[in-house]
Amino acid sequence: MPTYWSKTLIPTLREAPADATVPSHRLMLRAGMIRQLGAGHYSYLPLGLRALQKVMAVVRREMDAAGAVEVFMPTLQPIELWEQTGRRADYGDNLFVLTDRHGREVALGPTHEEVTTDLVKNFVDSYKQLPLTVYQIQTKFRDEYRPRFGVLRSREFQMKDAYSFDIDVEGLDKSYQAMYDAYCRIFESCGVPYEIVEAESGPIGGSASHEFMVPSPTGEDTILKSDKGNYAANVEKCETGDRPTHPAFAPFSRAPKGSAPASHGGAKARSDEASASMDPTGDLEKVHTPHCATIEDVCDFFKKKVGSKLKPQSMLKSMLYVATRDSDASDPTEAKDPWYVLAIVRGDHEVNLAKLRDQMDKAFGEDAQLQPAPEQLARDDKWALGFIGPHAAPTRDDTYLLVDPDAAQGGFWVAGANEADHHVKHFNWQRDVLDSISDDAKQRLIVADIRNAVAGDPSPKGDGGVLEETKGIEVGHVFKLGCKYTDALDLKVLDDSNERRSVIMGCYGIGTNRILAGAIERPEGNDDNGIIWPAAIAPYQVIITPIKFADQVKDAACDLARDLEAQGIDVLIDDREERPGVKFKDADLIGIPVRVVVGDKGLKDGNVEIKPRSASDAEMVSVDQAATRIAELLKTL
Amino acid sequence: MPTYWSKTLIPTLREAPADATVPSHRLMLRAGMIRQLGAGHYSYLPLGLRALQKVMAVVRREMDAAGAVEVFMPTLQPIELWEQTGRRADYGDNLFVLTDRHGREVALGPTHEEVTTDLVKNFVDSYKQLPLTVYQIQTKFRDEYRPRFGVLRSREFQMKDAYSFDIDVEGLDKSYQAMYDAYCRIFESCGVPYEIVEAESGPIGGSASHEFMVPSPTGEDTILKSDKGNYAANVEKCETGDRPTHPAFAPFSRAPKGSAPASHGGAKARSDEASASMDPTGDLEKVHTPHCATIEDVCDFFKKKVGSKLKPQSMLKSMLYVATRDSDASDPTEAKDPWYVLAIVRGDHEVNLAKLRDQMDKAFGEDAQLQPAPEQLARDDKWALGFIGPHAAPTRDDTYLLVDPDAAQGGFWVAGANEADHHVKHFNWQRDVLDSISDDAKQRLIVADIRNAVAGDPSPKGDGGVLEETKGIEVGHVFKLGCKYTDALDLKVLDDSNERRSVIMGCYGIGTNRILAGAIERPEGNDDNGIIWPAAIAPYQVIITPIKFADQVKDAACDLARDLEAQGIDVLIDDREERPGVKFKDADLIGIPVRVVVGDKGLKDGNVEIKPRSASDAEMVSVDQAATRIAELLKTL
Repeated sequence: MPTYWSKTLIPTLREAPADATVPSHRLMLRAGMIRQLGAGHYSYLPLGLRALQKVMAVVRREMDAAGAVEVFMPTLQPIELWEQTGRRADYGDNLFVLTDRHGREVALGPTHEEVTTDLVKNFVDSYKQLPLTVYQIQTKFRDEYRPRFGVLRSREFQMKDAYSFDIDVEGLDKSYQAMYDAYCRIFESCGVPYEIVEAESGPIGGSASHEFMVPSPTGEDTILKSDKGNYAANVEKCETGDRPTHPAFAPFSRAPKGSAPASHGGAKARSDEASASMDPTGDLEKVHTPHCATIEDVCDFFKKKVGSKLKPQSMLKSMLYVATRDSDASDPTEAKDPWYVLAIVRGDHEVNLAKLRDQMDKAFGEDAQLQPAPEQLARDDKWALGFIGPHAAPTRDDTYLLVDPDAAQGGFWVAGANEADHHVKHFNWQRDVLDSISDDAKQRLIVADIRNAVAGDPSPKGDGGVLEETKGIEVGHVFKLGCKYTDALDLKVLDDSNERRSVIMGCYGIGTNRILAGAIERPEGNDDNGIIWPAAIAPYQVIITPIKFADQVKDAACDLARDLEAQGIDVLIDDREERPGVKFKDADLIGIPVRVVVGDKGLKDGNVEIKPRSASDAEMVSVDQAATRIAELLKTL
Repeated sequence: MPTYWSKTLIPTLREAPADATVPSHRLMLRAGMIRQLGAGHYSYLPLGLRALQKVMAVVRREMDAAGAVEVFMPTLQPIELWEQTGRRADYGDNLFVLTDRHGREVALGPTHEEVTTDLVKNFVDSYKQLPLTVYQIQTKFRDEYRPRFGVLRSREFQMKDAYSFDIDVEGLDKSYQAMYDAYCRIFESCGVPYEIVEAESGPIGGSASHEFMVPSPTGEDTILKSDKGNYAANVEKCETGDRPTHPAFAPFSRAPKGSAPASHGGAKARSDEASASMDPTGDLEKVHTPHCATIEDVCDFFKKKVGSKLKPQSMLKSMLYVATRDSDASDPTEAKDPWYVLAIVRGDHEVNLAKLRDQMDKAFGEDAQLQPAPEQLARDDKWALGFIGPHAAPTRDDTYLLVDPDAAQGGFWVAGANEADHHVKHFNWQRDVLDSISDDAKQRLIVADIRNAVAGDPSPKGDGGVLEETKGIEVGHVFKLGCKYTDALDLKVLDDSNERRSVIMGCYGIGTNRILAGAIERPEGNDDNGIIWPAAIAPYQVIITPIKFADQVKDAACDLARDLEAQGIDVLIDDREERPGVKFKDADLIGIPVRVVVGDKGLKDGNVEIKPRSASDAEMVSVDQAATRIAELLKTL
């Protein structure tokens, strides 16, 4: 049965609210697909829900085909499970927690690793019951600090989450690949372009992960891709090829993970400083820089007050972290034996915490807790927060100095002066650090890749490729989790030698509502007039727009709708008493792939007008041929 | 594609936990349909989820056919909406409320009247946009004090909720009837027997409501039905026909709502006391009854300590309430001018708060807030809580005395003595109340139906029918809400004279997961061996049980499954390497409507064995005819 516009609920809007800045947010509101209840909470109206249900049907079909088993787990989760895995602290304020009438705390699930592990533990006790992959499609909750971009970053959202359980790594690899392949089929079926990038696993934890991204200039994620086409990664994860340091740093340099020898990866020396002399450019000179605690502040100050032009890449950025081996202490001020890590990157670069953590783990051969130094603790320990310079570190035996290769160069630098409201000019590593460093402090100096990759960096493949930057919207994420959850919650099974072994997990998420947004955000997903849906997930595949819904026009419209529905094509008939111009505008706005205009004039010649939403021109087709022609067109849209 | 048992997740259990007392709870656990995460929180495993999805598909189909429009609203609701309608106080601790990271309170939706009204207000401003009925299928949350009976009373549960919006009462009546009819079709389609009873509307508020009940001895709801078959109501709502009082009470008697004249309804005088003399049976005598604050305590005490047999129906039960006209004060101790209502019913009866409220409203011609008297307040006001007798009321000018007809009788009564740890014997209304009552106190004495109806009461239809009691499981509820929410949240539209009018609402709920439980709890829904599903919502319609899943048996099983699936019949193949006995037991336990046994022995003669779950005998059918025969059988199951 076709849907009549007047009988459903499609409250289109001329304007979107000013805070709707990205196309999907703006257009989903304007097309009457969603309505905001409160910040980050949206009601799905019929058009939005239909599209979402189509996505869910594709996801369900491919999950089933991949052998995953559908379940439906509770939203409210005992907080104890989150404490057992340490994730309550990891999630922090992002986790919605409520206290029930009996005073017990429960979390609103943002994800279900703990609950699934607990569930499977109930009835799996032998390797013979594995492999097992379960999935569910469900509303998830996350207390975002600042919800934005409509359904892209909301506080409750729709997810498909899946969890695999295997007895060994080979099994995990197979389960992971099955989900990876299913994800490719899902995004293809939905008509949404995607790229697969290597990714950090974030607070979920785990050993390997890939993200599925819809490329879009409005995406929140930064992707770096080699121009050779053989590497892509999220900026949080992206490695770089060998970036040469000044020879004076050779004893302290750590080669990047899996990088090729310097003669390859480093062949394209990018930084001017790499070849710069280690000679000082002038005496170390203190400059009064009141209230200039950021790189931008200092550059501004130099321009306005000192009268010299200072670029961020001529500065050293010093970031202070505190580390502890005491994994039980989430508050480092209460940990036993915390120490400091002073990370130095070039002023135009950003420290990558995952890389920094990785280097610290290598240095100690075990997991260390690492986090930005709490302000009070740092001040108590005499750090001149906001004005720290690299030369402070070697004089402190509680501090490691981690320097990024691009910062480990000769020549002239502006850096913090280790004194409130002051910086130094003409900082020189050789003169101001290396010449005077104690043997002991040398042990605490490491030069390694600790920053986010940027466009122009050498590809980690070591083949001369150069990284390019694009933006993307994350729509899917697959992780190899390992035993983090099964160990924490004691899910073990008997293996074929009758030994108890930890089960190995993977987890796999798709933001079903993000697929909708991604379909709109892709370059061909919208234009000035509105949304352009791919046929697979459009709320309706065809909209019939009668010039006036009466008499022979009404009959012809209803007959055509019936023929189309008989072929499994879903149809919206715009039966409103509105001017044709209004109906055409609304049809474009809601983005139905094929529009059919039925009017007296065309019918006189036995024709209707067919126009794909993405085409600029319409074609006249005889009434008899219309359904066939539309079915053909839809295969291409 | 058929499902293979070994590839899905059906963890059947021999035993259910001891706290699973009702059949649906026990059997859903044993059949591996659900698993408990915490009290009142269940995971749906594949069998449970499939059945639930089938129910949801039926609900969706009939809602769409009835012209309701599907939406999907947020779970988290701004608490302000609940405060504006006064329901935060009504729900009390049953409402889950959390505080987000910004310190704002949000409620987890147990129902969506407020949110829907707020949503519709966004885009409806003219009567031309009405009528409108929206619905959604969603997880709801309710902080039950004591979750129990599996999915029947859980803290998160699956609901279909719908809300209608009309410009006038005629419109509401039409929308209500459309939902009422759709509900009948839904329960019929699901194969679940149901009864429709008149119901109280509870904290949702409103003017008329019906409940849809699955009759079941394990139901939590008590239904009273006339033996004439023309009346059924929930005990909370059930009226009774005229029950005669002693003639001495005539000046104080209020006729029951819509009751026939006494010559009809009262023809069958039930209470012995009705014709009893008003003469005292002895002097009023105080008895020391230490710690006997309940009717049962007193009866026990008389039996053990006094040595005389006392039946509850020979006692007067006195229940103390406090009322106020100050609708803003949810705490009566802080209200202006509260007064007391002392309700007297026979010791074997229960006060019906809705009826009592109704009588108070009649007495005052406006809404009064009424609630059980808080203990501290009552003690401060010198009430001997637990030992109150009716003769206390007339001496207090702050107290109304409401007496049920069955308690307004002559003869001998045991009642509270208005003194801690004491009762009185030989209480007599004439001597101890009516003879000495002041004219003023007479104004505060009302005899009216204020108790729950019980089996044997006259039907309110006044046709000589007698009420019978049964139990039921509520699976659906329809309400005429009126303007409670639209007034509170200011949803008004322009009518055809261009005047702003309040929109009139109805609301309509179905517990989709309760339909599953109801299907099991119905008498023909289970037996000693397990569940017996109606074919319409069975997780699978057919289970094929190969004696040994190999060679020709495997081929025959798979061929048959393919033929059945081609007819749209879904099939579970038990491919496990288990003894046939185990497979048969499990097939019975999970309750699939048709079982097909395929074995070498039958195949030698070209046969398979077909047995409906509900039948005691199997039939041998030739392999060629099997699919046709099964399709025939399913139509009857």
